[in-house]
Amino acid sequence: MIKVIKVGGKLIENEQVLQDLCNKLSAYYPYCVLVHGGGSMAGQLSARLGIETRMHEGRRITDASTLDVTVMAYAGLANKKIVACLQSKRVNACGLSGCDMGVIVAHKRTVTDIDWGYVGDIDQVKEEVLAFLLEKEIMPVLSPITCSETGQLLNTNADSVAAATAIALSKRYDTELVFCFDKPGVLENIQDENSVIPLIDREKYKELLEEKSIHAGMLPKLENAFKTLDAGVKRVRLTSPSDLEGGTVIVGE
Amino acid sequence: MIKVIKVGGKLIENEQVLQDLCNKLSAYYPYCVLVHGGGSMAGQLSARLGIETRMHEGRRITDASTLDVTVMAYAGLANKKIVACLQSKRVNACGLSGCDMGVIVAHKRTVTDIDWGYVGDIDQVKEEVLAFLLEKEIMPVLSPITCSETGQLLNTNADSVAAATAIALSKRYDTELVFCFDKPGVLENIQDENSVIPLIDREKYKELLEEKSIHAGMLPKLENAFKTLDAGVKRVRLTSPSDLEGGTVIVGE
Repeated sequence: MIKVIKVGGKLIENEQVLQDLCNKLSAYYPYCVLVHGGGSMAGQLSARLGIETRMHEGRRITDASTLDVTVMAYAGLANKKIVACLQSKRVNACGLSGCDMGVIVAHKRTVTDIDWGYVGDIDQVKEEVLAFLLEKEIMPVLSPITCSETGQLLNTNADSVAAATAIALSKRYDTELVFCFDKPGVLENIQDENSVIPLIDREKYKELLEEKSIHAGMLPKLENAFKTLDAGVKRVRLTSPSDLEGGTVIVGE
Repeated sequence: MIKVIKVGGKLIENEQVLQDLCNKLSAYYPYCVLVHGGGSMAGQLSARLGIETRMHEGRRITDASTLDVTVMAYAGLANKKIVACLQSKRVNACGLSGCDMGVIVAHKRTVTDIDWGYVGDIDQVKEEVLAFLLEKEIMPVLSPITCSETGQLLNTNADSVAAATAIALSKRYDTELVFCFDKPGVLENIQDENSVIPLIDREKYKELLEEKSIHAGMLPKLENAFKTLDAGVKRVRLTSPSDLEGGTVIVGE
């Protein structure tokens, strides 16, 4: 079983948290692909550089200056910090952005009523590139920077990168997609961190929807999880980065 | 013959120059390793962030803030811009920093009378990692960011990375090391760009030293070239990035 583990960029901002994560990841080596975001690094860097952050419905618009900042923060600092930390724990990691070995093919999001700027939508993740590394016991560490066929760098949603990567790998391997977030799992009661639902299948999901007991913020995560399962991934896990074997497991059948 | 081509980071700051370089490099694909610097990007970014640049004898001291800036500028923006541009020309490039696949092992420069900060000195370039990529027709694009065995990222001289890479590859392949700089080659007369010396062997070098006709700035470059040849590299070329087949060729015998 290959694990595709998505972590937020926030984790990288604290040295101890980074060390703990890399220790945990070393247990899965070499059957693991890590996908990271950039957390607040890009926003902080933009603010220090006096670059205005333009948002639309809570999401960032990526103009040329903001793109440079995200490439520096995600493909540069976040990616290399994680890889260097993994290497120090004898995990032979390789940092990749989508352009490297052409591992992710993307295109600039089409302008409709809103121009998101240099934002990438994924056409393809080349699982043969990841397999080439995994079979050599090299752990890919993917940043959410991709490029178009014309060589334009693009800022891409890290959750989408993780899902597309897991789907691509599932052609070749049994694959588990692990989303780390700031809760210990899907909670029956949002007020109670001990109310983690260990397993959600379609029947349980239907029940939860009827009960309306799921927190609204979780609904898109669960919906996307089932889409990923439909596309071939064996299971999806929603958990905190401190417990990669715990949390909520979502299965298709 | 494998070519290891070192280019300055300045090249990346101009879109047309980058396109021209990548067109030229595509002619050597897949028998080529590119090593790039970061040019003035890191300095400019530091200035915009209000980070003081501390110099000693004309060389930058890399404190923690400056290190973050160099990682962002070199391993992030410069590296990914070059790789994306190469990909758009059907050159399957892979950007690497020293930490990626552990391709370069370095250590933090020992503090003597001066503390250079987070500066790396190279212990080893693993030619088997580069061969693994080259044999799959993947062109490595190396940034001068390395890491120590404890996972500390380090800013490393790009000329040293290029020389160590060429020496390592020469164990396995006939290797030419190409240094691109702002002159068309080694000039007999520094005032005359048409006075390029096409070939320098040890005898010619001795003559030039006796004549004292070589510009002082060229002497360390020539001295390092002969060291590299002594270590196994077939030839060293000093040329402008616009003429990768021209300039001055330096040979050991």
